[in-house]
Amino acid sequence: MTANEQTRVITRADVARLAGVSSAVVSYVINDGPRPVAAATAERVRQAIEVLGYRPNSSARALRRGVGDTIGLVLPDSSNPFFAELALEIQRLAAASGRAVLLASTTGNQRHENRVIEGLLSRQVEGLIVRSDAAHRDPFTTIRADVPAVLLDTMAPIPGRRSVGADLRAGADLLVEHLIAEHGLTRVGLIMGEDQSGLADPRELGWRDAQRRHGLPEGPIARGVFSRPGGYAAMQRMLATGKPPQAIFASSDVQAIGVLRALHEAGVRVPEDIALVSFDGTVEVEYSWPPLTAAQQPVAQIAREAFRMITDPGPDDVYRLIPTELVIRRSCGCAAEPTH
Amino acid sequence: MTANEQTRVITRADVARLAGVSSAVVSYVINDGPRPVAAATAERVRQAIEVLGYRPNSSARALRRGVGDTIGLVLPDSSNPFFAELALEIQRLAAASGRAVLLASTTGNQRHENRVIEGLLSRQVEGLIVRSDAAHRDPFTTIRADVPAVLLDTMAPIPGRRSVGADLRAGADLLVEHLIAEHGLTRVGLIMGEDQSGLADPRELGWRDAQRRHGLPEGPIARGVFSRPGGYAAMQRMLATGKPPQAIFASSDVQAIGVLRALHEAGVRVPEDIALVSFDGTVEVEYSWPPLTAAQQPVAQIAREAFRMITDPGPDDVYRLIPTELVIRRSCGCAAEPTH
Repeated sequence: MTANEQTRVITRADVARLAGVSSAVVSYVINDGPRPVAAATAERVRQAIEVLGYRPNSSARALRRGVGDTIGLVLPDSSNPFFAELALEIQRLAAASGRAVLLASTTGNQRHENRVIEGLLSRQVEGLIVRSDAAHRDPFTTIRADVPAVLLDTMAPIPGRRSVGADLRAGADLLVEHLIAEHGLTRVGLIMGEDQSGLADPRELGWRDAQRRHGLPEGPIARGVFSRPGGYAAMQRMLATGKPPQAIFASSDVQAIGVLRALHEAGVRVPEDIALVSFDGTVEVEYSWPPLTAAQQPVAQIAREAFRMITDPGPDDVYRLIPTELVIRRSCGCAAEPTH
Repeated sequence: MTANEQTRVITRADVARLAGVSSAVVSYVINDGPRPVAAATAERVRQAIEVLGYRPNSSARALRRGVGDTIGLVLPDSSNPFFAELALEIQRLAAASGRAVLLASTTGNQRHENRVIEGLLSRQVEGLIVRSDAAHRDPFTTIRADVPAVLLDTMAPIPGRRSVGADLRAGADLLVEHLIAEHGLTRVGLIMGEDQSGLADPRELGWRDAQRRHGLPEGPIARGVFSRPGGYAAMQRMLATGKPPQAIFASSDVQAIGVLRALHEAGVRVPEDIALVSFDGTVEVEYSWPPLTAAQQPVAQIAREAFRMITDPGPDDVYRLIPTELVIRRSCGCAAEPTH
C-alpha cells in the first residue's frame, strides 16, 4: 500500500461504485431509509462498506476533530432515579452537540471519588460535572482541574466554584406549606437523609421555615441513608415511637418509596391516616401507590445550566439555584385522581 | 521554563518539601486519611499541590498509558432501572480495572442509534457493549467496528456476533409454572412489550411453554411499549374486555409497575383478585406495593460476561444465555412477608 492510498478518505461514492448502485442507495442502507432497498442490494452495499472500511461522514468529521469534545460526569449511585434522569438529560444535550459523556459513579468514600475524578481528567475531558456523594464536598480542593468544572447540589456557595442545583429550601417550604395551609395538618414529621457535611440540609431548613411561619411546634425527625432501605428503616423507627405525625415529608423520592412500604406494612393508609409528600418528583413516585405529591426537581434546567457552564464557561464563582415545581397527586390528601 | 523543567514529573516529595511537612502527611490530605491532619496544615498542603500542579500517582500512570482503556456502552433509556443497574455494574468492573465508560443512551430510531455508536467508535474505545433499542437488531451490519463488540439481549444467536443476556424464555416459563403449579391459577394473561424485530419474544414463548405443558388454553395478551405508561395502558385495555385473567405475567418491571397502577385504580386487589409476576427483578419491584414476585435478571453476571468479551475477546461468534432466579414475594399469592 502506498502512502497515498493510506491517507485517502473512502467516500460514499467509492462504496456506490463497488456495489454498483447510486450514492443515494448507499445512504438509504446506512440510515435505514428514508426509501426501502431490496435485501440483495442492501447486502451488496454492506459488503462494499466492509471491504472498503468506509465510515459515514459524521464519524469522519469526529475523527478529524480528535478525541476531545467529551464531558466527564460524576454521579452517586445511578439506581436513584433522580440521578438516572439527570444523566439522561446531560447525555441528550451532549449528543445534540456532537459530544460524548464519560460517566462515572461514585457510591464509595471520598478517596474513591477522587480517584474517579482523576481518572476522567486523565482522559482529557473538555469539562467536568460532579455531584459528590456528600452533596457539599468540593473535590477540587485536592484535585487540580485544568478544565471547567461544575458542582451540582452544593448546599451553599463554594468560593471559586461553579455550582447549580434546585432550590431545596424553597421547595421543601412549599411542600410543608401545602400540608399545613391546604390540609390543616399541624404535625408534620421529617424523614431526612444523612450527610457528612455537617451543614444543615436546606430541605430540613425549609421544613422548619413553614412550621415556624404558622407558629407550629416542630414535628418529629428520623434520619437514614438517602435510599429506599434508609427511608424504610427511618419510618419504622418513627412509627415505633407510638406517636406518629399526621403527615410525613420525605427528603427524597427513594426515601419516600421506603416510607410508603413501611406505612403499607403497618396498615397505615396514605393519605387517610398519614399524608406523605416527597422531594425529587421522579417517575417512580408518579407510579407508586398512591402517587406522591412532590417538589419536582428541574432536571432539564439543571442539566442545561451545568452543560452551559462547561461549554461556554463564564466566571468560575457562580451559585445558581433553580425553583422546583409543586406537583399535586393523591398522597397529600388532594384527590387529583379518582379514588375508590 | 527549561525543557528539563517542563518534562520533570512533580512528586509527592516536592509537595511535602514546599508545604514543610512529611510525605505521609501529603498522602493523608490527598486521601482524606487514614490519619487526621490539622486544618491549617492541610490548607498548606493543598496550596502546594495547586502551585506545583501535582497529580497523584494513579493519574500519572493513566496519563502515561494514554487515552485508551475506555469502554463504550450503548443502552436504551436509562430511566428503566434494569438498564441503570446494568450500567452501574459495568462501570464498577471498568473502574476496578482502571478503565472508564463512555455511556450513550439511544431512545431514538435506528438512525440515531447508528450515529451514537459511530460517535463512540470515533473516540477510540477499546470495545463496545450495545443493547439496541430493538433487542434483536445488529447495528454492525452497517457499521464497521475495528474493536471487540458485544450485543446484549439478542433474542437469538446472530452469526459472527458476541451476544449475552438472560435466558428470557426459561425465566418466563419458571414464573408462569409457579403461578399454575403452586397457586393453581389456570388463566394467566400476558402484558407484553412491543418490538419491531418481527421475532417472537422469548418471554412470550416461555409463557406459552408453561401453559402448554399443563394443557391449558392460552390466556389473553395485551401489548404496549416497554415502559410504565405502556404497561398501564395495556392493563387498562385488558380490564376493559370484562374478562380479566386470574394472574398477569408482565414482561418487564417497568410494565409491571404500570400494570399495578391500573389494578390499584380499578380497585383490583393484588394478589387476592389478580396475582402479578414480573420480569427483571429490579429494586423498584422489591419496593412496590405489594412487592412483586419476579424472574431476576443476572445483572452482575451479564455485566461480567460482556466485560470479559471486550477485555479478553475469544471467538466472535458466541451466544451466551444466563439463567434468571425466581424471587418470591407477595404479589403471586405467597405470603413471604407479613400481610395485614
